[in-house]
Amino acid sequence: MLIKNCWYVAANPQELQAGGILGRTILNTPVAIWRLANGQLMAALDRCPHRATPLTLGRIIENTIQCGYHGAQFDESGQCVAVPGQTNAPARGCALRLYPVVERHGFVWVWMSDAPPASLDAMLPQFAIGNHPDWHGGSGLFESLKANYKLVSDNLFDITHAEFIHPESFGGPETRYYRRMEPGSDYVDGKMTYEAGERSITVRMLARNLGDDCGPFFRWMVSSGLGTEHKQPIDQELEIIWVAPSFVYFRGTSSPNHDRNKRFSMVVLHAVTPESETACHYFYRAVRDFAPGDEMTQILARNIYDIFQQDRAIFEKQQLRIGDGDLFDQPLVSFAGDIVQVCARRTIRDMLAAESTPNS
Amino acid sequence: MLIKNCWYVAANPQELQAGGILGRTILNTPVAIWRLANGQLMAALDRCPHRATPLTLGRIIENTIQCGYHGAQFDESGQCVAVPGQTNAPARGCALRLYPVVERHGFVWVWMSDAPPASLDAMLPQFAIGNHPDWHGGSGLFESLKANYKLVSDNLFDITHAEFIHPESFGGPETRYYRRMEPGSDYVDGKMTYEAGERSITVRMLARNLGDDCGPFFRWMVSSGLGTEHKQPIDQELEIIWVAPSFVYFRGTSSPNHDRNKRFSMVVLHAVTPESETACHYFYRAVRDFAPGDEMTQILARNIYDIFQQDRAIFEKQQLRIGDGDLFDQPLVSFAGDIVQVCARRTIRDMLAAESTPNS
Amino acid sequence: MLIKNCWYVAANPQELQAGGILGRTILNTPVAIWRLANGQLMAALDRCPHRATPLTLGRIIENTIQCGYHGAQFDESGQCVAVPGQTNAPARGCALRLYPVVERHGFVWVWMSDAPPASLDAMLPQFAIGNHPDWHGGSGLFESLKANYKLVSDNLFDITHAEFIHPESFGGPETRYYRRMEPGSDYVDGKMTYEAGERSITVRMLARNLGDDCGPFFRWMVSSGLGTEHKQPIDQELEIIWVAPSFVYFRGTSSPNHDRNKRFSMVVLHAVTPESETACHYFYRAVRDFAPGDEMTQILARNIYDIFQQDRAIFEKQQLRIGDGDLFDQPLVSFAGDIVQVCARRTIRDMLAAESTPNS
Repeated sequence: MLIKNCWYVAANPQELQAGGILGRTILNTPVAIWRLANGQLMAALDRCPHRATPLTLGRIIENTIQCGYHGAQFDESGQCVAVPGQTNAPARGCALRLYPVVERHGFVWVWMSDAPPASLDAMLPQFAIGNHPDWHGGSGLFESLKANYKLVSDNLFDITHAEFIHPESFGGPETRYYRRMEPGSDYVDGKMTYEAGERSITVRMLARNLGDDCGPFFRWMVSSGLGTEHKQPIDQELEIIWVAPSFVYFRGTSSPNHDRNKRFSMVVLHAVTPESETACHYFYRAVRDFAPGDEMTQILARNIYDIFQQDRAIFEKQQLRIGDGDLFDQPLVSFAGDIVQVCARRTIRDMLAAESTPNS
Repeated sequence: MLIKNCWYVAANPQELQAGGILGRTILNTPVAIWRLANGQLMAALDRCPHRATPLTLGRIIENTIQCGYHGAQFDESGQCVAVPGQTNAPARGCALRLYPVVERHGFVWVWMSDAPPASLDAMLPQFAIGNHPDWHGGSGLFESLKANYKLVSDNLFDITHAEFIHPESFGGPETRYYRRMEPGSDYVDGKMTYEAGERSITVRMLARNLGDDCGPFFRWMVSSGLGTEHKQPIDQELEIIWVAPSFVYFRGTSSPNHDRNKRFSMVVLHAVTPESETACHYFYRAVRDFAPGDEMTQILARNIYDIFQQDRAIFEKQQLRIGDGDLFDQPLVSFAGDIVQVCARRTIRDMLAAESTPNS
Repeated sequence: MLIKNCWYVAANPQELQAGGILGRTILNTPVAIWRLANGQLMAALDRCPHRATPLTLGRIIENTIQCGYHGAQFDESGQCVAVPGQTNAPARGCALRLYPVVERHGFVWVWMSDAPPASLDAMLPQFAIGNHPDWHGGSGLFESLKANYKLVSDNLFDITHAEFIHPESFGGPETRYYRRMEPGSDYVDGKMTYEAGERSITVRMLARNLGDDCGPFFRWMVSSGLGTEHKQPIDQELEIIWVAPSFVYFRGTSSPNHDRNKRFSMVVLHAVTPESETACHYFYRAVRDFAPGDEMTQILARNIYDIFQQDRAIFEKQQLRIGDGDLFDQPLVSFAGDIVQVCARRTIRDMLAAESTPNS
């Protein structure tokens, strides 16, 4: 069961080259995404209504898309407006199945459900990490990971794994604070607090006087951000907001502990889009208010790529163990701190139940 | 559902090398095909009755086939006639499941059904394109295409796709005449006529004064055939005969419009053999009454290979969209001219229904 | 259906390198196998009880195994004894599913069933082919063969195939004696006798005056073993013991026919372990009382590898013909001598029936 009434990230804008038609499977459905000559974004079931040929084998002609097999053309409304060799275009029944599509927060989003689309801004009010002159960064994509989207979401929401999967980058001692989780909304040194909203959970951590035992790559970023000596202790604030069903927002702020005004931040939006019950796409957008310039962006991109491959090795193997079922339908033992994961899973279950009732 | 009471092309004769045993899956059944030392063609279920080992792992010994595992030998009637180390051969129950097999029209044909075989000549009376001194050409095979055989048959039977899939070879303006389809048996300039038989449909096209906008490769063939200038207008006649369930015969005749007596022809028999519901083999035999010699045969073979790869990319993707079902069981919109495809599909459906009734 | 109440070979001891965790699928179950720092062998379901991560992605820390995802540690009893960042270890419910595991006869064995483990020595009393100063040799493994284990067992138990599959190694005329099978326990020249036990079948063969028409590789081994001329006739005794469900013991003794006291022997234990209904692992251990030294061991290993690849080509293709079913559920014709295979299959069927009854 996958949640349908949701805006999902379908693409990074740079994937939509002029004249190109991008194909991506979302919620078990093949979707074609393209831009008309006038710049308008379009998304449709990747299937011509004539003979089921994928639209992705076609081409853009001005403000229409043309099927690559027999040449039928479809306009902005999805209607077939021309068939080569045929005097009159077919009647209204010959039309594409279009999906609502928007560009926001540096991503291309689609609404796959038959229900009227909800407000994307209401869904993600705090994720204003699109283009802004003070913030620098980029986007990335891992397509068709062979794991249920919730395993990726779980991974992003349990930072203790960094000590074991990412010791050379982010695996510092502060990740163990996750096991000292308690309700609340304050930043408490050496602990994590959590606060559940209707469809979100916010977790906050404070680590004072983090020293040289931090993850090496994190430590290097701190030096780059603060221009300080590598070994100088820092204070670190971390806010993680999980939004159902599969968005995770990280905001990390570091400052040297001798000078709280000298601080720098990094913000990452992780968006996981279900491809099927056992596969997903992982998009991220990472921006920072320090070290502007492409060189740092590229260093970060390379490192994020390597780091995420480490995670991928884990949750693709978890999926093999689980098979087609759901991790949480199996006998499991949870540790301290896992309460937020369990709570997130329950939120998703409630949303699915609401979708399957007649009046929803 | 696949039609069983039919002769299907199983191989090109040149695939049956002396002493070799060819394996090919037809109608979901693994078939072994070989020639005895006396030249007799044999076809059987590719499974030894002793321990289910494929016969294709065995060898030909004189006029028997020997299983490669334990050495049992089977004669022309399929009966086991020798077991190494055993004094007496097994009783009659130890026999191969043989299939009727013949060589005709430049192909090797098999009859897979339990019903007595029909007359192959009655099935394909007009396809006399075997070896003849005035006709030159060759054969080809695309094995195990990942598409239902009807998608390939549809493709061969709707030439409008040439404008989009084969613009550099056959995609001339005359392909649009297909959308001006009307009943009849005449050649009408600028149109196509169609005539349905009991198990066949014949389509005819006439294109007068075809000019320089023809498909480039077609244009090159015309120059080769007529020895005329490239830009000289021609008249083109095309006859296409579809025979259920999956044979398509093309006969194209070209002449310079200033001299109707100077004409040349090309004849192609396309034979599509179901491997399973979602895969098929495509055989063709193409002969011409001009430009004799191997060089032209090889040029044509290379071009047919490239051209068909373009089609293959389309219908293997169509199959992905359809899944395990049938294209025509899905919601579809048909265009002008598609009436002949729809009629062909209906013929196949009727044949299937007839096969599944007790008295058929 | 696979037999559960059985010791199966899970690994060769040399696969368990210090600090390594070996993964292998047995009876459709992923199993992790490792050695603690104190040398103790461990085997468990390859799945952490916390979040189903494979243990094979973890590491050995002293006498515990640590999950590679969130760092939980498990001791010799399988109990979780530490979670990083968490003050108290979880309660007893957080434990690995351990399997009984022993090292014996040069192999690592596991007991996968929930029933109490039987005596391995009672199961295989005669297979004392472990390390002994007078016997030289080595072990090998073919992992994840795409065939049901019974097809491999059948193969090892019907030596007539050697004439067809292994003509350049073991395919001599004496293999045909298999088709002259009769009840008994004697060695009878030119024949094979068989004797069925409760869960085993013993077959004996005597071939006097075997000459130059023996399998060439066998002939070369005879020369190596006896130091005699290549062409000198020999007497050959062969004892084959099949033990349910999938162990086959070969003992071959050769002597020059002019000197019965000058004899040499080779002993092989073949152990086939079901991975699933359609895949298995094949282990062997081959020892000899002649030609000590690594060079001969390596020559034999290379040849056994090549010879078994020939068999593999056969039974992986048999499996393709059979699909998911069982060979003996299909219509089959058996030859003379196949009575022992049929008897072995019946023994397996009886064992399966006994396992599925409540009181077994």
